[in-house]
Amino acid sequence: MLDVPLLQTDEQTALAELKAFLRIPSVSTLPEHAPDVRRAAEFVRDQLVAAGLENVALIESPGRHPLVYGDWLRAPAEKPTVLFYGHYDVQPADPLDEWLSPPFEPEIRGDNIYARGATDDKGQTFIQIKAIQRAMRLGGGRLPVNVRVLIEGEEESGGEHVEAFLASGDPRLKADAAVICDTEMFAPELPTLCVGLRGIVYGEIHIETAATDLHSGVYGGAAPNAIQAAVEVIAALKDRDGRILIPGIYDRVIAPTSQELEAWARLPFDLEAYRTGEVKVTELTGEPGFDVFMRTWARPTFEVHGIRGGFVGDGAKTVIPARAVVKVSMRLVPDQRPEEMVALLEAAVRAAAPRGAKAEFRFLHGAPASVVDPENPFLAKAAEVMTEVFGHETLYIRSGGSIPIVGSFSRHLGIPSVMMGFGLPDDNLHAPNEKFYLPNFFRGIDAVARYLVRLGA
Amino acid sequence: MLDVPLLQTDEQTALAELKAFLRIPSVSTLPEHAPDVRRAAEFVRDQLVAAGLENVALIESPGRHPLVYGDWLRAPAEKPTVLFYGHYDVQPADPLDEWLSPPFEPEIRGDNIYARGATDDKGQTFIQIKAIQRAMRLGGGRLPVNVRVLIEGEEESGGEHVEAFLASGDPRLKADAAVICDTEMFAPELPTLCVGLRGIVYGEIHIETAATDLHSGVYGGAAPNAIQAAVEVIAALKDRDGRILIPGIYDRVIAPTSQELEAWARLPFDLEAYRTGEVKVTELTGEPGFDVFMRTWARPTFEVHGIRGGFVGDGAKTVIPARAVVKVSMRLVPDQRPEEMVALLEAAVRAAAPRGAKAEFRFLHGAPASVVDPENPFLAKAAEVMTEVFGHETLYIRSGGSIPIVGSFSRHLGIPSVMMGFGLPDDNLHAPNEKFYLPNFFRGIDAVARYLVRLGA
Repeated sequence: MLDVPLLQTDEQTALAELKAFLRIPSVSTLPEHAPDVRRAAEFVRDQLVAAGLENVALIESPGRHPLVYGDWLRAPAEKPTVLFYGHYDVQPADPLDEWLSPPFEPEIRGDNIYARGATDDKGQTFIQIKAIQRAMRLGGGRLPVNVRVLIEGEEESGGEHVEAFLASGDPRLKADAAVICDTEMFAPELPTLCVGLRGIVYGEIHIETAATDLHSGVYGGAAPNAIQAAVEVIAALKDRDGRILIPGIYDRVIAPTSQELEAWARLPFDLEAYRTGEVKVTELTGEPGFDVFMRTWARPTFEVHGIRGGFVGDGAKTVIPARAVVKVSMRLVPDQRPEEMVALLEAAVRAAAPRGAKAEFRFLHGAPASVVDPENPFLAKAAEVMTEVFGHETLYIRSGGSIPIVGSFSRHLGIPSVMMGFGLPDDNLHAPNEKFYLPNFFRGIDAVARYLVRLGA
Repeated sequence: MLDVPLLQTDEQTALAELKAFLRIPSVSTLPEHAPDVRRAAEFVRDQLVAAGLENVALIESPGRHPLVYGDWLRAPAEKPTVLFYGHYDVQPADPLDEWLSPPFEPEIRGDNIYARGATDDKGQTFIQIKAIQRAMRLGGGRLPVNVRVLIEGEEESGGEHVEAFLASGDPRLKADAAVICDTEMFAPELPTLCVGLRGIVYGEIHIETAATDLHSGVYGGAAPNAIQAAVEVIAALKDRDGRILIPGIYDRVIAPTSQELEAWARLPFDLEAYRTGEVKVTELTGEPGFDVFMRTWARPTFEVHGIRGGFVGDGAKTVIPARAVVKVSMRLVPDQRPEEMVALLEAAVRAAAPRGAKAEFRFLHGAPASVVDPENPFLAKAAEVMTEVFGHETLYIRSGGSIPIVGSFSRHLGIPSVMMGFGLPDDNLHAPNEKFYLPNFFRGIDAVARYLVRLGA
């Protein structure tokens, strides 16, 4: 149990401020939460000022959630410039009834703080801000290196604003490396740097079979059914064994190097503990012929997130639905290109439409996969400080998730991303009862503050 | 255009009262509408009293919507007793945004009155009440035959209360024939008696793949997905051509007699007009080797009504759903037995569950198909009066829908059901913009009133 009263004063303050941050339901994907998203941006802005940063500003774009920017650029000319990135927006909280405590009323139970965004990414964004504040204090109001901070509010909803800003050539983007705290450690107590991320294509399959919903008694047997058509389309895109059937989908997939595969083989991993303790399923599934690391880090996926249409209320309604919308995504790996994958999916959806159904894929957002070179000195120094703070050699892993900004940093700014992640595998990201392991919150602040010092040495 | 100001006074009164009836959102399947359902029952009760019936009462059962009963039993002993049946409850009105006028604010456009329940079954139930009232007035306060009226409020939600009442042996159920106005005419101006109905099995397929929803980045590729599992289960239950794959499902199906098939072959039917004008689809679907009458009247169906689970809001949420619920029904034909079909479906669902998924069918309600003998004198006389009122020979057809009460009247009371239907094929039953063709409302009252006189002659 974390003994909260015994925390040092600045730790107690940081925890109280984190709670205030977590109370703001900044769900960027839901229009009704737009005012909350703005409140979260303003909260971050005020925190950057409090940390001692300069030129703090909200960067606005019409119809978009603001970026929050701040910098401190008074380090000697030979010192590097580090760009910290995080996001203040969160995933929707539903299904609400599966939360043990309300998603936007942070609650400490045991060593964890429970709230939507606790790990992803408010807790980890806050690590960066508090680490800068600590380094500033240690340096008597000066930082060891130049620092820029850019926190966005659309990471969970497409990130268009930050993408446009990165492409804009704005001078506030000049930096030597990006630091991102939005990934997880391989296991508790094992410090981890993430050196690979999958990309994503997210969109909707729209299906239409009739002008209007129909009575299943009167027309059942003769009329096409939009949800049945959706079922047939989806079943045609992935087989029961987990192989994706979209023609061409695997053509550009590049296998990891033998060096990387050997490192993965040395990772401490208990498949049965992963299945029962982390994923909590009776059986793991997925593409035959690949292990879990390959399936989740280095192979593409096709996933259905929900099907809208027809009647799903309590009781019985005998309707033949005329329309269905299927939310789907593909996770991409090197060297798959989002625009090519969209084209393949569009063609496969059209080809899979059964008799009487119009089916089309509508693209919402996408980003390619990214890998970073573990030999880069910005990564090597991050590994050093994490090894010091956690007392264990730092591991290099990939993540199956998508942080599109990593590709954008590389593409637009030509800089590597250092992914120092402090989440844990059981943190319930994007799910009910999301949590953050509080000892990692404090060790994260320590590690990032030391990192700034190490980079300036 | 129906010239409303030129209607006779009692027609205007009947129309005004029908509107009041339609304004009550008596959706029996939605618990939040329970008070409205009761208001509709009380409305019917008051109408039965106004029509001159006696022993009018609400028949209650705990947790159930009331039955409304009334009778007039003063006809000479040799006269038959007719039991009128209808229902005052309606289907849910969603999707609301597809209605041109609000579902519970009846609006007359052209010759039609638009509202949820306009045809199914408030309009047709009201035909019976107004016909009894007219016959009573013609007879100077006496009816030509004995009449009982039984109007239920759970026809759209399983009908458990009326089923229990029919099984109870209550003396108020003694009758020689039932008269039901809840079906449709084969085409405008063609009077029609329905002599066959499909049965139904309605329920939910519950699928569970994990303890909680999962992040599709972190676990995509290794974790089972409940909606993908639902897709695989449904795809295993019906093929792309429309053949049901549930083992044994067709074993008990009895084909119509050659006489009935010949009569169907003579029905005026334009497949292209049916497709474009009535069903409004680009292509009809269904089981190969059978025509539309066979597919919709004499073959079983398996239909998906909706899939609940995952994320279906606006925007993007990258969740792997842990649970899904699929609303499904089967329409049954002679001689399929609901309990057997449930067992076949249960087994097929279990067998179709993919790796990592638990799948089970949960039965909600069911009823067998029913056919009635067109030679029965109660049917023959109904055909006579309908031919008189509409000026065209009465057709005998089946309906693909389910009116479970017909089987219950046969099973519990041993009486035939006369299905005098005044709906039209384009009335949008169970769909947005449900309507009733008003000339049929008035001709229906005329036909049923004449029927009472004919039966008493």
